[in-house]
Amino acid sequence: MTEVRTEHDLLGDRDVPASAYYGVQTLRAQENFHITDVPLKHFPPLVEALAYVKHAAARANQELGILDDEKADAIGAACEEIVNGQLHDHFVVDMIQGGAGTSTNMNANEVIANRALEILGHEKGQYEHLHPNNDVNLGQSTNDVYPTALRLAILLSFPQLTAAMENLIESLKAKGEEYKDILKMGRTQMQDAVPMTVGQEFTAWATTIAEDVQRLTRTARLFHEMNMGATAIGTGITTDPRYANLVAKKLTELTGIEFVTAVDLVEATSDTGAFVTFSGILKRVAVKTSKICNDLRLLSSGPRAGFNEINLPAVQPGSSVMPGKVNPVIPEVVNQVAYQVIGNDMTVTMAAEGGQLQLNAFEPVIAYNILNSTRMMTRAMDTLSERCIKGITVNEDVLGDHIRRSIGVITALVPVIGYAASTEIAAEALKSGRGVAELVIERGLLDEAHLRHILAPERMTKPYRATGKTDIMPVITDADL
Amino acid sequence: MTEVRTEHDLLGDRDVPASAYYGVQTLRAQENFHITDVPLKHFPPLVEALAYVKHAAARANQELGILDDEKADAIGAACEEIVNGQLHDHFVVDMIQGGAGTSTNMNANEVIANRALEILGHEKGQYEHLHPNNDVNLGQSTNDVYPTALRLAILLSFPQLTAAMENLIESLKAKGEEYKDILKMGRTQMQDAVPMTVGQEFTAWATTIAEDVQRLTRTARLFHEMNMGATAIGTGITTDPRYANLVAKKLTELTGIEFVTAVDLVEATSDTGAFVTFSGILKRVAVKTSKICNDLRLLSSGPRAGFNEINLPAVQPGSSVMPGKVNPVIPEVVNQVAYQVIGNDMTVTMAAEGGQLQLNAFEPVIAYNILNSTRMMTRAMDTLSERCIKGITVNEDVLGDHIRRSIGVITALVPVIGYAASTEIAAEALKSGRGVAELVIERGLLDEAHLRHILAPERMTKPYRATGKTDIMPVITDADL
Amino acid sequence: MTEVRTEHDLLGDRDVPASAYYGVQTLRAQENFHITDVPLKHFPPLVEALAYVKHAAARANQELGILDDEKADAIGAACEEIVNGQLHDHFVVDMIQGGAGTSTNMNANEVIANRALEILGHEKGQYEHLHPNNDVNLGQSTNDVYPTALRLAILLSFPQLTAAMENLIESLKAKGEEYKDILKMGRTQMQDAVPMTVGQEFTAWATTIAEDVQRLTRTARLFHEMNMGATAIGTGITTDPRYANLVAKKLTELTGIEFVTAVDLVEATSDTGAFVTFSGILKRVAVKTSKICNDLRLLSSGPRAGFNEINLPAVQPGSSVMPGKVNPVIPEVVNQVAYQVIGNDMTVTMAAEGGQLQLNAFEPVIAYNILNSTRMMTRAMDTLSERCIKGITVNEDVLGDHIRRSIGVITALVPVIGYAASTEIAAEALKSGRGVAELVIERGLLDEAHLRHILAPERMTKPYRATGKTDIMPVITDADL
Amino acid sequence: MTEVRTEHDLLGDRDVPASAYYGVQTLRAQENFHITDVPLKHFPPLVEALAYVKHAAARANQELGILDDEKADAIGAACEEIVNGQLHDHFVVDMIQGGAGTSTNMNANEVIANRALEILGHEKGQYEHLHPNNDVNLGQSTNDVYPTALRLAILLSFPQLTAAMENLIESLKAKGEEYKDILKMGRTQMQDAVPMTVGQEFTAWATTIAEDVQRLTRTARLFHEMNMGATAIGTGITTDPRYANLVAKKLTELTGIEFVTAVDLVEATSDTGAFVTFSGILKRVAVKTSKICNDLRLLSSGPRAGFNEINLPAVQPGSSVMPGKVNPVIPEVVNQVAYQVIGNDMTVTMAAEGGQLQLNAFEPVIAYNILNSTRMMTRAMDTLSERCIKGITVNEDVLGDHIRRSIGVITALVPVIGYAASTEIAAEALKSGRGVAELVIERGLLDEAHLRHILAPERMTKPYRATGKTDIMPVITDADL
Repeated sequence: MTEVRTEHDLLGDRDVPASAYYGVQTLRAQENFHITDVPLKHFPPLVEALAYVKHAAARANQELGILDDEKADAIGAACEEIVNGQLHDHFVVDMIQGGAGTSTNMNANEVIANRALEILGHEKGQYEHLHPNNDVNLGQSTNDVYPTALRLAILLSFPQLTAAMENLIESLKAKGEEYKDILKMGRTQMQDAVPMTVGQEFTAWATTIAEDVQRLTRTARLFHEMNMGATAIGTGITTDPRYANLVAKKLTELTGIEFVTAVDLVEATSDTGAFVTFSGILKRVAVKTSKICNDLRLLSSGPRAGFNEINLPAVQPGSSVMPGKVNPVIPEVVNQVAYQVIGNDMTVTMAAEGGQLQLNAFEPVIAYNILNSTRMMTRAMDTLSERCIKGITVNEDVLGDHIRRSIGVITALVPVIGYAASTEIAAEALKSGRGVAELVIERGLLDEAHLRHILAPERMTKPYRATGKTDIMPVITDADL
Repeated sequence: MTEVRTEHDLLGDRDVPASAYYGVQTLRAQENFHITDVPLKHFPPLVEALAYVKHAAARANQELGILDDEKADAIGAACEEIVNGQLHDHFVVDMIQGGAGTSTNMNANEVIANRALEILGHEKGQYEHLHPNNDVNLGQSTNDVYPTALRLAILLSFPQLTAAMENLIESLKAKGEEYKDILKMGRTQMQDAVPMTVGQEFTAWATTIAEDVQRLTRTARLFHEMNMGATAIGTGITTDPRYANLVAKKLTELTGIEFVTAVDLVEATSDTGAFVTFSGILKRVAVKTSKICNDLRLLSSGPRAGFNEINLPAVQPGSSVMPGKVNPVIPEVVNQVAYQVIGNDMTVTMAAEGGQLQLNAFEPVIAYNILNSTRMMTRAMDTLSERCIKGITVNEDVLGDHIRRSIGVITALVPVIGYAASTEIAAEALKSGRGVAELVIERGLLDEAHLRHILAPERMTKPYRATGKTDIMPVITDADL
Repeated sequence: MTEVRTEHDLLGDRDVPASAYYGVQTLRAQENFHITDVPLKHFPPLVEALAYVKHAAARANQELGILDDEKADAIGAACEEIVNGQLHDHFVVDMIQGGAGTSTNMNANEVIANRALEILGHEKGQYEHLHPNNDVNLGQSTNDVYPTALRLAILLSFPQLTAAMENLIESLKAKGEEYKDILKMGRTQMQDAVPMTVGQEFTAWATTIAEDVQRLTRTARLFHEMNMGATAIGTGITTDPRYANLVAKKLTELTGIEFVTAVDLVEATSDTGAFVTFSGILKRVAVKTSKICNDLRLLSSGPRAGFNEINLPAVQPGSSVMPGKVNPVIPEVVNQVAYQVIGNDMTVTMAAEGGQLQLNAFEPVIAYNILNSTRMMTRAMDTLSERCIKGITVNEDVLGDHIRRSIGVITALVPVIGYAASTEIAAEALKSGRGVAELVIERGLLDEAHLRHILAPERMTKPYRATGKTDIMPVITDADL
Repeated sequence: MTEVRTEHDLLGDRDVPASAYYGVQTLRAQENFHITDVPLKHFPPLVEALAYVKHAAARANQELGILDDEKADAIGAACEEIVNGQLHDHFVVDMIQGGAGTSTNMNANEVIANRALEILGHEKGQYEHLHPNNDVNLGQSTNDVYPTALRLAILLSFPQLTAAMENLIESLKAKGEEYKDILKMGRTQMQDAVPMTVGQEFTAWATTIAEDVQRLTRTARLFHEMNMGATAIGTGITTDPRYANLVAKKLTELTGIEFVTAVDLVEATSDTGAFVTFSGILKRVAVKTSKICNDLRLLSSGPRAGFNEINLPAVQPGSSVMPGKVNPVIPEVVNQVAYQVIGNDMTVTMAAEGGQLQLNAFEPVIAYNILNSTRMMTRAMDTLSERCIKGITVNEDVLGDHIRRSIGVITALVPVIGYAASTEIAAEALKSGRGVAELVIERGLLDEAHLRHILAPERMTKPYRATGKTDIMPVITDADL
C-alpha cells in the first residue's frame, strides 16, 4: 500500500492521499477554492445533513430496485458514521466555492463511497464496486442535494438557537419579576418621560425576544419543503416518478423531521426565497438584540457621570490603563454579532438576487452566511444570558432619586390640572430645580393627599385617569378591569 | 378677517396663514424639517390612517364620557372629510422629521381641530372651544398614534400591492399556459443543461411570486396588533383602564380592519419588529422580482448575438443613436425599483436598531421607506405585467435549434448508457459540433426508435428513468403515479 | 392652433400637448415609468447639467463644421434658458426609469429642439428644421450624455454641500473655543474614563467633519473625467476623432469646471466606479454625522435622569402629551438622513454591480440616489448647524460635579502610586462613594499640594506624566514641547 | 514545574496552563468571547502588527528613560520573535470580542511579558520582574494600541492585495493584446449594439481594475496616521509630551512604513473614518470585480444555447449528474467573495456608526471584517487570474458570425444615409433576417466599396465619422489626431 492512490475524472489523473476518504474531485475543489480558511467540517450540521440526504436517497433507490441492498446498506452505514461525527475531518472544501455546491456534493459522494467501499471489504478508490456518482449520487444532482442539505442543516441547528433565546427570555423575565416593584423613570427620545417599573423594562425585553422566537419558528417551517427529485433543473430528468416523494419519506424517517416535496420543482430548484426570509428574520433578531444591548450599556453608564441605574456583572478587567474600570464587554460583543448578522444578510440578499435562470449558483455563500449567523447568534444569546443578564443588579437609590427629582410625573396630573398649568409648573421646576410636587401644592392646585394618591406607583405605571374630585378614590379602580 | 392668525405654543407666538387648517406646531415643524421635499400628503394612506385613528380615539373617549358628544361628532366629521381626501393639502410636514412623529401627530391634531371648529361654527384657531391637544389628542400620545397610524396605512396600501402581484401572477401563468408545449434548453450556471418547456419557466416565475404573496400576507397580519392606549411609554398613563380595548374596537368598526391591543404595551411602544419584518419581506419580493427581470433581459438578449429566445414588447425607441434598437426598459426599471427597495430596507434596519429605551425616535424614516417601497413595488408589478409580460412572444425556431444542437440531452441517456460513455459522447459532440443523437446511433449504443422514445419531450421534461430494454415502453408510465 | 400636435417615432404617431416643449419620446417615457412621483425637474442641477452638455456638444459640432451656425446658436440659446431655470417644468420623466437614461436624454433633446425651433421662428414639432436626434443629439449617445450630465450635476451641487459642512465645522469650532476651559469627564464604552475639556469634544467633532470635507473634495475630482465622445459603447462610432476633446473643452468653457476625456472610453462608458466611491464617501459622512448626533442626544439626555451635560436649543414643543418636554428633534432628523444615505448607498452598490458588458443600464437609480443623498445631506448639515449646534449651552455645575465625584482621575496618579494601589483606591471609592483625592491623601500616598498639582486641569487634559518627586514642578513642562 | 500557574487580576485568581505565554486576562477573554471560532492567530498580520507597536512603545519609553534597557531589550526580543511567527499560537482570543480590543491588547501584553521574562531568565508569570501592564503596556492604552495595530496590519496585508490586482491587470492586458484585432459585437442593455474588438473589452477590464488599485492605494495612505500617545481618550494622560512623536518615529524605523501622529488625538481616538473609507473602497473593488465575473459568465454561456464567445478553462468537472458539463466555477466563487465583501462593508458601517463619545467600542468587528475582506479579495484576485483569465480562449467563428448577422453596424452609416433610412433598413433586416449591408446596396444607398470602407474594422471600432463623398478616403484620418 502506497501513500497515495491515483484517481481519474473528466480532467485527467490525480494522486490523492491514500488515507483520504475524499477523492479527486474534492482535491481539485480544494485547489480551486482557497478563500476563507473555513472548510465544510467547521459546520457539523451541514456535514451531517449531507449524510442524511445521501442516506435517504440510497434507501429510496433501494426500495425502487435501482440500487442493490448491499450497496444501499454500505452507503447507509457510512452515512451513519458521518452523522455520528466520525468522518468530519474529510469534509475539506472551502465553504465559499464556485459550482453551486457541486464540490460539497462531490466531497460527500466521495467520502461516503470510500467509506462504504471499506465496509464492503474493498479499498478506497475501487469505484468499480461502488461509485461516487453512479451509486452515492444516484438519482440526484447537486441542485437538489445541496439546497436540501442546507435546509436540513438549518433545522438541525435551530433547536440550539431557540433554546438560547428561551434561556435569554427566562433570564429577562426573572429579572423582571425580581424588580417588578422598583420604580424608575421611563425615557423617550433620551429625555425623561414618565415613571415605570424596572420590571416592566426587563419584561418588555423578554416579550420582544419571545416574539422573535415565534417569527423564527414560523419561518423555519419553510425549510421542511425541499426539492429532492428535481435533479438538474427541477424537471426530474433521470428519476423514477415515484422517487421524489419516496426520498422525502425516507428523509423524514431518518431525521424525525418532516419533509415534503415542493409542488413546483422547477421553481423550487432556483428559488432561494426561504433563505432570504430566514436571514431577514435573523436580521430582525439581531436588530432587537442589539437594541437591548444598547439599552443595557446606556442604563449601566457611569458609575458617576452616567445613568447608573443598573450594574452589569464584571467579567474581566476593563482597561489596560485605567485602574478599576469595568466595561460592558458582554453587550458589546453581542452588538458586534448583531452587526455581523446584518452584514451577512446583505450578502445573502445579493447572492439570492444574483441567481439566474434554472439555478442559483451562489448558494454556497448563502449557506455559509446563514449557518454562520445562526451559530454566532446562538452563542451570543447564551453569552448574554449567562455572563450578563443573570448577574444584573439595580441601584435603587439612584432610581428613587430620579423619580423624586423628575419633572415628567407632571403628566399624570394633566387630566386634573390641565395641559397649560402643567406646562407652566414643568418650566418652573426645570428652571428652579425644585420638585413638581411641592410646586403643585404650593400653588394650591391639589392637596397633598390627592397628589400622593395620583402619584402612587401603582397608578403611575398602569392605565389610570386622575380626576379632579376631592374624594381621592379613583372613579375607576383596577378591580373594574 | 386678516390673512394670518396668531397661534401660541410652548415657544411663543407665531402667525399662521389664515387659510391653513394646520397650526403653529405644524408651522414650526415645516421650518425645522426641510429635508426631502416629500410632505405627508404624498402618502394619502398615511393621512387617512391618521384620521381613522383620531376618529376612533374620539369615539372611545365619547363612550367613556370624557369627551362630550358635540366635540366627538365634530372631530368625527372632520376625520371623515380627511378620509374622503378633502384636506390632504394641509398635511405638509416633511416625511423625514425628528420627534418620533410628534409633528405628524400635531399636524393631524391641528387640521382636525380647526376643521372641527368650523363645523361647530367657530373660526380656525379658536382652540378654547376645541383643542388640538386637550380634545383631538385626548388620551393619546404620538407614541401610540404614530405607529398605529403607520400600521393602518400599510394595511390600507396592502390590497393594491397584492392585486398588482396577483395580476403579475396571472400574466405569467397565462404565458405558461400559452407556451406549455414549447421545448427549450434549461440552463444552470449560465451553461446549457437539460430540456424543459417555456411553460415550465413562466409557471415557475408565477409560483415564486405567489409564494411572495403568501409571505407578505402572513407578515401583514402583524400590523393588526397595535399599541393605542400606551400613551407615552406603554404604561397607559392618563388613560382610563377601559380605553385601550375600546379604541381598538372603534378603530375596527371604522375601518373594517380588525385591530387588537398588544398584550405588553411597554414592549409594543418601542418595538419596530413588525416593520423590520415587513420591510424584510418586501426585500424578498424585490430579490425575486429582480431575478425574474434579470432572466427576462437575458432570454431576450440579441437579437443576433444573444439568447434571442423571447421578445419583449417594444414600448419606446431604444436608443438616441442606434437606429432600430429596442431595449428591455420595463424589466430595467423594475430591477431599479428592486434595488431601491433593498436599500430602503437597510435604512429601516438601521433606524430600527437605533431605537433607545422606551421609544424608537426614528419611526418617521421607517414610515417613509416602507410606504415608499410598498408604493414603488406596487407600481413596478403593474408595469411589469401590463407593459412587458402580457406582450411577450417566443422565437420557436431559435428554441428548437437550441434543443437540436444541444449536448445536454445526453443526461437523459445516462441511466441506459452510463456516465462514462455519456461523458465521452458529450466531449466529442462539443469538439466536432455534431449532434448527440447521431453519435449515439453511430456508435450503436441505442437504436433510433429507442433514442427517440427517451428523448421525447414528454419524457425529458418530467420525471422519467430510461431503461436499457429494447421494449420502448417505459417500465413505469406516468399513469402509475 | 390646436391644443395638441402630432409627433412620430419608431412606434408610431402620438398626440403631444401643444404647449409642451417635450415630445413623443418623453410622452412615452412618462407613461412607461410611473414609479416615484419624482420627475427630473425635482433635481435642478441635473436639468441644468443636461443643458450644459447639449450646449457643449452643439458648439463642438459647430466648430467641426457638422452643425451650422444658425442651429448651433439656437440650441445654445435654448440651453442657456434652461440653465437659467426657464424650462424646468418640461423635464417630466420619472427619475427612476428603464433605458439607461435614454428617456432623460430624449427629454432634454426634445425640449431643447422645440425651444430652439421657436427661437428660429418655427413652431414646436417642426423637426424638419431642427431635429432632436439629428441635431441636438448630434455625435452623442445617451451612454455618454447621461453619465456626463450626472457628473456635472454632482459637481454643480457640490459647493452647497461643502458650504453646509464648513458651516457646521465653524459652528462646532466656535463652541469648542467657547468651552475650551470647561472640564468634563471623558467616557469610553459608556463608562467614565478620564477628564477632558468640553472644548476638546466639540473640536474633535469639527476635526472629524473637516476630514470628511477633504475626502469628499478629493473624491469629487473623479467627476471631472467624462466620456463624451464615447457614443454608444466607447468606441466613438459616428464621431469625428477630434470631437471628444473638443466637447470637453467646450464644456469646460461653458461651466467654468474643468473636464477631461477619459483615456479608455470603452471602460469609462460602462464604469460606475466614481459613483460608487462618491456614494461610499457620502456614507462615511453619514456615519460620522450620525455618531455626532448620537453623542449630542446622549450628552443632552435628562434633564434629571440623564447625562444632562449640555442643552440643545428648543425648536418645537416636544410632546403632545407630556407638558414641558423638549426633545432633541434636530439630531434625530439628522440621524434619519444618515440612515437614508446609508440605505441609498446600498441601492447604488447593487445598481453598479448589476451593470453588464458595455453599459450600466441602471444609472438612473444611481443618479437618483446620489443626487438625493447629496441634497438631503446638505440640508441636514445646515439644519444641524443653524437649529442645534449654534444654540447649545453647557451645564457647568453638572460637569463640575461629575469631575469631583469621578473615580477616573486616579489614572493620572498611576505613574506615581502604581497600578495596584490605584486599583485598590478606585475600588474603595466606588464602594464607599467617597472621592479619590481624599482617599489618596488619607492613605498618605501623596500630599495635597502634589495631588492638586497633578490633577490640575491643564495637566489632566494634555500629555503629562506625573512623577513621585516631592518637588511639584513637572520634570517636563509644556514649554519643553 | 506544575502544569498550571496561578495568576491574579481585578476579579481574583485563576489557573493558567503552565505552557501558555498568555495569562489570566487572555484566559478570561477566551471564556467570555466564544463567538466565531476565529482567533487572532488566524490573522498573522494583526499579530505581527501588535508586536511592532509594542516594540516601538518600549523603545520610546526606553529613550525617555521610563523603561530600563534590560526590560526594553527583552520586550524587543520577544516582539521580534512574534514578528518572525514564533508565538502566533498563543494569540487565542476570538476576533469578535467586547471591550474595544482590550483583550487583544492584553493577549499581546501577556505573551510578550512572559516571553520577555523567559529571555531575562525568569519563569512565566513572575510579573514582579516585568509586568504586562506596567512595562509592556507602559504609556499605552488599548484605545491607541488597537487601532494603530489594525492600521499597521492592513498596511502589512496591502502589498499582497495590490500584487494580486496587478497580476489580474496584467492577465487582462495580455488577453487584450492577444485579441486586439478580433471583432465582436458590443452590447448595451443586453442588446446588440455596435462592433468593438475583443481586445477593447479585456483592456477595459484591465483599466477598471487599475483604477481600483489607484483608489485603494490612495485610501491606504490614511492608515499612516495613527493615535499612539492618545492613551485612554486622546488627551495623552500619563504620557510624557515627547512620547507620541517618539513612538511614531520608532514604529517607522521598525517597520519601514512611515507613521505620523494625528494632530487631533481626541478625534483620532474615536474616529473610524479611515476604516469606513477603506472598506467602502474594497466594496467598490468588489462591485467591479463582480461585474467582470458576471460578464465572463455571460460571454462564456452556452456552448450551444448561449453567447459562446469565449471559453473559460475547465478546472473541475461541472456536474455530478450532467456528463461533460463544465461550469464557470472561478468567476462564480469570485462573485461570492464580492458579495461577502459588500456584506462585510455593511457590518463595518454599522459598527462605525455605533461608536459613542470618546471611543468606538466596536473596533474588533471592524478589524475582523476589513482583514477578512482584504484577505478574501486578495485570494479571489489571484484565483481569477491564475485559474481563469490566463486560460481564456475565444471562438472567432462565433464572433465573426455575430458581426456578419448584426444589425447594429447600421449605426456607422447614420452620418451618411440618415437616421430615418437607417431605422427603416434595421427594421427590414430584423424582420427578414437579411444582412444590413446587402439591403443598403440593394437600395442603392451606398456602393459596395464605399460601404466596405465605412464598415472596415479599424473605422468601426474607433472614432470615425463617415461622409457621403464618393471619395472613399476619410476626410479626417487618424493621423490628424
